[in-house]
Amino acid sequence: MARLVMKFGGTSVADLDRIRNVARHVAREVKAGHDVAVIVSAMAGETNKLVGFVEEASPAFDAAEYDMVVSSGEQVTAGLLAIVLQNMGIPARSWCGWQVPIETSDVHAAARITNIDPQNLLSSWEQGKVNVIAGFQGIGPDGRITTLGRGGSDTSAVAVAAALDARCDIYTDVDGVYTTDPRIVREKARRIERISYEEMLELASLGAKVLQTRSVELAMVHKVPLRVRSSFDDPDSPLQVQDNGSGPGTLVCDEDDIMEQQVVTGIAYARDEAHVAVRRVKDKPGIAASVFGPLADANISVDMIVQNVSVDGYANITFTVARNDLRRALDVLQAEKDNIGYESIDTSTEVAKVSIVGIGMRSYAGVASKMFRTLAEKGVNIEAITTSEIKVSVLIDEAWLELAVRALHTAFDLDAV
Amino acid sequence: MARLVMKFGGTSVADLDRIRNVARHVAREVKAGHDVAVIVSAMAGETNKLVGFVEEASPAFDAAEYDMVVSSGEQVTAGLLAIVLQNMGIPARSWCGWQVPIETSDVHAAARITNIDPQNLLSSWEQGKVNVIAGFQGIGPDGRITTLGRGGSDTSAVAVAAALDARCDIYTDVDGVYTTDPRIVREKARRIERISYEEMLELASLGAKVLQTRSVELAMVHKVPLRVRSSFDDPDSPLQVQDNGSGPGTLVCDEDDIMEQQVVTGIAYARDEAHVAVRRVKDKPGIAASVFGPLADANISVDMIVQNVSVDGYANITFTVARNDLRRALDVLQAEKDNIGYESIDTSTEVAKVSIVGIGMRSYAGVASKMFRTLAEKGVNIEAITTSEIKVSVLIDEAWLELAVRALHTAFDLDAV
Repeated sequence: MARLVMKFGGTSVADLDRIRNVARHVAREVKAGHDVAVIVSAMAGETNKLVGFVEEASPAFDAAEYDMVVSSGEQVTAGLLAIVLQNMGIPARSWCGWQVPIETSDVHAAARITNIDPQNLLSSWEQGKVNVIAGFQGIGPDGRITTLGRGGSDTSAVAVAAALDARCDIYTDVDGVYTTDPRIVREKARRIERISYEEMLELASLGAKVLQTRSVELAMVHKVPLRVRSSFDDPDSPLQVQDNGSGPGTLVCDEDDIMEQQVVTGIAYARDEAHVAVRRVKDKPGIAASVFGPLADANISVDMIVQNVSVDGYANITFTVARNDLRRALDVLQAEKDNIGYESIDTSTEVAKVSIVGIGMRSYAGVASKMFRTLAEKGVNIEAITTSEIKVSVLIDEAWLELAVRALHTAFDLDAV
Repeated sequence: MARLVMKFGGTSVADLDRIRNVARHVAREVKAGHDVAVIVSAMAGETNKLVGFVEEASPAFDAAEYDMVVSSGEQVTAGLLAIVLQNMGIPARSWCGWQVPIETSDVHAAARITNIDPQNLLSSWEQGKVNVIAGFQGIGPDGRITTLGRGGSDTSAVAVAAALDARCDIYTDVDGVYTTDPRIVREKARRIERISYEEMLELASLGAKVLQTRSVELAMVHKVPLRVRSSFDDPDSPLQVQDNGSGPGTLVCDEDDIMEQQVVTGIAYARDEAHVAVRRVKDKPGIAASVFGPLADANISVDMIVQNVSVDGYANITFTVARNDLRRALDVLQAEKDNIGYESIDTSTEVAKVSIVGIGMRSYAGVASKMFRTLAEKGVNIEAITTSEIKVSVLIDEAWLELAVRALHTAFDLDAV
């Protein structure tokens, strides 16, 4: 007997057959005696269709009206799942965000959840009903519909779980979090049984697409045990979550709940970086500020920064930006050319960022140097480096990406045996 | 300067181009200085798609969940029209039924509007905004979404107009109410300039499909001037509604506002009748009750009833039911055979009902006999008759339908000259 929030994404509710499959997953948990709340996304493709309508209506649009239109997709799925559950003999009722209510800030299309009063959902549980809640949406301070931004249903699920003091199972189209992308390290990538919130956050922000960064942050703050698992598993499989936390998928949890820490837990990569080199700037105080100040003013995030050692009073400043910010970054630097006083700017988009992540790094020395040595042995040149307490990222030529990921996966003992 | 509610049906908002056309109609009224509220239906086909989902989810479904799913269609259109209006420089905001709020009874899928507090809409007008309201939906006493039944957007529009003390223009795909169906009386059918609520009610319930019966009832009770006009008219046409009430389309209004009453205003017909003859029942008190009681218990509406004069202690009871109730009606009568004690039952679906409607009948004698004489001259046999204060209906063989309508149209001076 536990409280459980189950979240199903768009692929998992793409049509009525899939919704029936989702209902079987829910039925299993209800029969196990749990109080269940289900968060659903819009049917796959629906949100894109609705966004397309909005963009066709006007190139610039009122975000409050965008939310009015786009939030309808989740509403449909919630009603349909409630009907399918009832048809299976399981009492259920659907909720829009405003009905729960899921209160949010007034930043339309990118709202933050500010409060969830659990009273209505608890009353519904007392009546023996499954609560089916439209994800991705809430109600703003002025009573208008808000949405949480793309992928916001994960965040809805974690926030509802926090409000209900429940655990949260995120059902998706993969069966867990892997040590790295199985498309790159075929057969040897392993499903991670348990991963800490901090590691999951790093992996998510470094390119792993399983969970929204915000939902992991929220789970960490509220200590919501979060499980990533596949909605395509057999709903009636006897292999389910055990009292000790083992079971299908990957459990994202507090690091204290992980017995055996690996030094490196996972390897992430991102291809959406662009490399910018500002050549021959005067090596004097304030020169970095003259480059990065205007970029920050233009809301362009800069990632890996390297300032070369000066030899003749001049230095090179290199850094990375998101690939789709490159054009704007160059415009900014061009406009500031006289102020910065550089000779030229080189750019490359044929770069990739590879990162190793692991809480164990905190207590083991030599992890970064092992990473650099491994890459050197394979002849991979490192163009830039950034580190945090639990991750090391390197920028390399994109052509070596797969090679680098595979070599690191082996070097840090992540290969499946 | 007036208050105006404009309602656009599904065909009028079928795609973004049509929605832009709707926005031009709205823009014209805003520029004329009116305070405007717009009621929109779902884009043509959307409601059917959503209903299809619900029926696929379960053959028997919870009407509250049906409402959750189906109400999303109008929400989308409301948001899109608000965006298009804003893009044209016209301040606008959208409203779901629950946001207005449009309060209703709790009878899901067939709710009745119980109250509309106009305060929010009035405040929005004070801010200079067009109110774009999702039709067909409201909020029940328990805070759940309700819908008003198919075609309910007309009812939404009239109810909002009543709450705002506004006039109401219903934009549809025809340019007004005609003396009869122009597909039958080609070229000679005339657009009616003004028609009384009572006449419109009779025509609507007798088969004219321009307006929902409920919306006309509501307009009559609250004395909302109701205009039916075409959304396909040129939005920028100089021919618009005048202070004296003349203008495009048909004005549905109080009979006192109609100067020259015709004796007969319109001719309606319906093909969806079925004729049932219960042969040789004992002609004794209570026999009619034994036939119609069980039908009423089964929620089957019976229309035109004729009980033949008894000759040998036996009579025939004939009546009509809606064609799609026929199967159920026969089942009921079969089950009651011993109790009623009839010899046999004959049925026919090759019948049609033709009706003449006009407030002028009240003060002119001989209207019914003129109708019968006209039909007799054309050799049309009358199988049954019903009358009310302002209408006469006859049941005839369906093969003579077009002939009968044309003859009556001419006989009652309705032909266009």
